[in-house]
Amino acid sequence: MQQLKKNSYIFGRHPIIDAIQSGTSFEKIFLQQGTRGEFEKELRQITKTHNIPVHIVPKEKLNRLTLANHQGVIGIISLIPFYQLDDILPFIYEKSETPLILILDGVTDIRNLGAIARTAEICGVHTIIIPKKGSGQINAEAIKSSAGALTKIPICRVQSLDAALDTLEWSGITPFVSNLGGKNMVFDCDFTQPVAIIMGAEGKGVNREILKRVDNHFIIPQKGTTDSFNVSVATGIILYEALKQRIRI
Amino acid sequence: MQQLKKNSYIFGRHPIIDAIQSGTSFEKIFLQQGTRGEFEKELRQITKTHNIPVHIVPKEKLNRLTLANHQGVIGIISLIPFYQLDDILPFIYEKSETPLILILDGVTDIRNLGAIARTAEICGVHTIIIPKKGSGQINAEAIKSSAGALTKIPICRVQSLDAALDTLEWSGITPFVSNLGGKNMVFDCDFTQPVAIIMGAEGKGVNREILKRVDNHFIIPQKGTTDSFNVSVATGIILYEALKQRIRI
Repeated sequence: MQQLKKNSYIFGRHPIIDAIQSGTSFEKIFLQQGTRGEFEKELRQITKTHNIPVHIVPKEKLNRLTLANHQGVIGIISLIPFYQLDDILPFIYEKSETPLILILDGVTDIRNLGAIARTAEICGVHTIIIPKKGSGQINAEAIKSSAGALTKIPICRVQSLDAALDTLEWSGITPFVSNLGGKNMVFDCDFTQPVAIIMGAEGKGVNREILKRVDNHFIIPQKGTTDSFNVSVATGIILYEALKQRIRI
Repeated sequence: MQQLKKNSYIFGRHPIIDAIQSGTSFEKIFLQQGTRGEFEKELRQITKTHNIPVHIVPKEKLNRLTLANHQGVIGIISLIPFYQLDDILPFIYEKSETPLILILDGVTDIRNLGAIARTAEICGVHTIIIPKKGSGQINAEAIKSSAGALTKIPICRVQSLDAALDTLEWSGITPFVSNLGGKNMVFDCDFTQPVAIIMGAEGKGVNREILKRVDNHFIIPQKGTTDSFNVSVATGIILYEALKQRIRI
């Protein structure tokens, strides 16, 4: 762990709370092990509201990150802003567009994350939803892999994908999940309606709980014997199918 | 430039000629600057017949590659066999399949090459054609990126793409080229006939001469403002479209 670069982080109790309140986006916050009392309570609450991941770490780690008087808390500033799903949805409907949403469940590979964002932006995806825990960091390499698309397409970071699916379904958006065990072909799905497409990480696939609650499972046709498509290629195929259906109606 | 690993290369005049004649696949051959005479003539001819790239290098480079008595010639053994187009085509027709061929014009990025081979194998592509010059090396990283597909799908290395297109057209295979300046949509192309799909490198696109001689140019629909799809995602979309059309007839 190297020392943090200037302007890439904020430290100290008041400055962190102030920054979150005034809308600064944080990749994550490091909190010193054993921190208790009013500040700890306030930080927990405000980071929950803003879906900012908090990592509890020993004091030594904080000391390695900065020589400054960190007061037991350091926040890593995010390179992109994170949005709340509730702020994005009305915006799509206001534009009279049919929502096309992408949900990434546990895609941790930075290059794949970037490549997927690039494809999503080109295909007209309105937002990419990622869970607070278990997603790849949106760092400079991810932004480079995305050919800048990560700075154009809004990313929603959510507390839980399950709660996000509740919000989407209440808003009339039908979830579809890409699942190697699915029965329908991707080209038989109706993507002209408001949809959210869920992609899992390579190898692991989508979380079991999500697979259970979502009815629409689909596969991409395959002919050869190689295991399966790379997740960024698979996402490209699915979003192309959606875009094509929407162009053709 | 590090010293070559044991069993990764062959050196010496007779051994190289013998190995080529007995079918050993070479990634490339390093020939000492200024080599003339019978051996040089024979090597030129046999490497041309087998489409093996020859790099003329100073003696010092050869000395750095090996401590052995190389006699002015070192051949780097390929991790995969390379095929001749003439050997592959009859094999496709014998299986009563409709040829689906992929041509990569100048794709030098190793990871993209691997990812494309993975997708191609899954989509039932019969062979990938690459030019002798200006393609990424099929090394261990490419094979890893391909999830092993590079060891399953035959790769044809050709002297020139132009000559390869002649062979394909004589065999009744229609070439299609992915070109950002194209007018037809990829989904309006008929990929149920025998086809060869030509992809260019990112940024550069397909060689001008090829663009001129091929009539069928197509694009993938786009909605967003990011430049264009990553070449491996674009190839995935096109091959999916071809596979889907073939499944549906």
